[in-house]
Amino acid sequence: MAAVWHSTLNFMLGAKADGETILKGLQSIFQEQGMAESVHTWEDHAYLATYTNKNGSFTNLRICPHGLVLLDLQSYNSDIQGKEEIDNLLNKVEERMKELSQASIEQVKCLPTIVQRGAIDRYWPTPDGCLVGYDIDEVVGDGDSPYQNIKILHSKQFGNILILSGDVNVAESDLAYTWAIMDSGKEEYTGKDLLILGGRNGGKSREIVKLKPKMATMVEIDQMVVDPCKKYVHKTCCGVLGNLKGDCSQVLIEDCIPVLKRYTKEGREFDYVINDLTAVPISTSPEEDPTWEFLRLILDLSMKVFKGWEVFSTGNCVNLTEALSLYEEQLGRLYCPVEFPMEIICVPSYLELWVLYTVRKKAKL
Amino acid sequence: MAAVWHSTLNFMLGAKADGETILKGLQSIFQEQGMAESVHTWEDHAYLATYTNKNGSFTNLRICPHGLVLLDLQSYNSDIQGKEEIDNLLNKVEERMKELSQASIEQVKCLPTIVQRGAIDRYWPTPDGCLVGYDIDEVVGDGDSPYQNIKILHSKQFGNILILSGDVNVAESDLAYTWAIMDSGKEEYTGKDLLILGGRNGGKSREIVKLKPKMATMVEIDQMVVDPCKKYVHKTCCGVLGNLKGDCSQVLIEDCIPVLKRYTKEGREFDYVINDLTAVPISTSPEEDPTWEFLRLILDLSMKVFKGWEVFSTGNCVNLTEALSLYEEQLGRLYCPVEFPMEIICVPSYLELWVLYTVRKKAKL
Repeated sequence: MAAVWHSTLNFMLGAKADGETILKGLQSIFQEQGMAESVHTWEDHAYLATYTNKNGSFTNLRICPHGLVLLDLQSYNSDIQGKEEIDNLLNKVEERMKELSQASIEQVKCLPTIVQRGAIDRYWPTPDGCLVGYDIDEVVGDGDSPYQNIKILHSKQFGNILILSGDVNVAESDLAYTWAIMDSGKEEYTGKDLLILGGRNGGKSREIVKLKPKMATMVEIDQMVVDPCKKYVHKTCCGVLGNLKGDCSQVLIEDCIPVLKRYTKEGREFDYVINDLTAVPISTSPEEDPTWEFLRLILDLSMKVFKGWEVFSTGNCVNLTEALSLYEEQLGRLYCPVEFPMEIICVPSYLELWVLYTVRKKAKL
Repeated sequence: MAAVWHSTLNFMLGAKADGETILKGLQSIFQEQGMAESVHTWEDHAYLATYTNKNGSFTNLRICPHGLVLLDLQSYNSDIQGKEEIDNLLNKVEERMKELSQASIEQVKCLPTIVQRGAIDRYWPTPDGCLVGYDIDEVVGDGDSPYQNIKILHSKQFGNILILSGDVNVAESDLAYTWAIMDSGKEEYTGKDLLILGGRNGGKSREIVKLKPKMATMVEIDQMVVDPCKKYVHKTCCGVLGNLKGDCSQVLIEDCIPVLKRYTKEGREFDYVINDLTAVPISTSPEEDPTWEFLRLILDLSMKVFKGWEVFSTGNCVNLTEALSLYEEQLGRLYCPVEFPMEIICVPSYLELWVLYTVRKKAKL
């Protein structure tokens, strides 16, 4: 695997940058490293100098005429020694820039190095398109099931994180999510019959079992999610997934649609339904994305097996207002009229605020 | 201000990449845009092709012989139209790559565009060196006081964020921090005398005032922090900062060291002391960084004006284990022996877990 380290340093100069002076002043730093130079000059006296090193790394020096100087450095297969070389080069450039611009530097900014294609991928976009870096230090597991890619990555602060097809799903730090989607503390589960759709790591079952329900039934399609969670996401699932059938909990490894249809046919009813199957799709074309149809079918079927008033359902990032509106539109199209107050929660490993819905049957008039 | 947009797309190919075929195949995409080409070839048949555009933008195409193809695109002063052009170019490259490599692409990864030096800076490193992007959409205020740079930036999800000299301090979403450092729910503040060192946004005063203390005294050195917080960080400070002196709260705009020394001399005592002055320094050289000395002096003086047993104190990111150990070392050097249980909390806008300490005088034997 060829890891690529990308480092970025930029300077904002108070006075107009004299491109030629800066270029000449910095040149020697790269030449000392034995790097070959190639310079492109624009009509407005902007410069792009590319320095290539024999070891495969290269540096771009971009000088804009209005005072912006950018340095981009890409190196390959770096180790600790390579990291030191990069830091040395960046420090030398910063020092030289200070000499050259004689205190006219208004701002210097060095972004943390981004490592691409390393053994561990630490950078992913959030659902609303921000780049965030995670403190991942180990790939605990990585594999494909018939349904999805399943990764367990270890974060120094969040513990093991379950990642399904690239989306952060739940981490050992995230009991807050479990409590919120259970509406913990507000609802009375003792002696009640519960249905959990998409249990994944068993966190909800574990917390619910503590409250002594009559039976908590978790329906999860993917055995390959349950197995590693049982082993690696201890803190949020310990115990419950160990036995598929316990005194007051059971795990069905099945597709929830036929299960719900069967329950409906049998007239089986639950006191609570917790829908934790999938986040609200980011796609804003409900007519094209079958996930929307699936979501609505699930909610409709949930309402049918549900003798109580409230279904709890996961949402998505609070910033995805368009997708959340579309979800609310789907909720308006269920077979029975519902209201759906939302709650905004903070789940540690998500690095963004998350919306949960409580879908409530409207009282008959 | 010259914003720079940096987009990154990379491909991992299953088979060894035939560099020359890929280079020739992609060339025409850039040539169609009127971009000038310059190619560097390494001995191991790696390629770096640089394409410069008349408008000042450029693209680096890096082909490694072991199957990694990286595209880096930098454009300048882009607007929505410019963004579309970038996306079009990236899409064209992705399509062409799929044609060229005949389904041998194992992975494609496109990182979200990083904008440098735009009117709004959205990317900062966390204290432990990860790059994180914030959903900032407005610079509400930016200025320098004699003590620090003070920014108020608006985040779509976190509301207004107070940033002191580049560090995220508190946002409107962060009542969790206030509650945690007050040890809310566990401590009884009614009728008590409280001292808050470094109140910044007044959040703690506001929450404490609700609990009807005898008097909550907040000591904050920087009037220029109090003023914008009063105006813009409503949700966590409303009311309390409006009047510097209320029935059961007062704000002293003073350096806390002489205040604490004065109180010690006068024999003034408090039931609770909340130390929210500064995070544990990241520097790991206590002998060189005066902040460590300052922190210890504050804690020593706090213990002296304190008739109770517990002082609450902010820490730092849970990953900064070395810095936290050094802080604990300082705690071991106070004039009276203390114990210091820590709590890990999740503050929404911090994007990392945070450590708080309760510093407790040891019972005399």
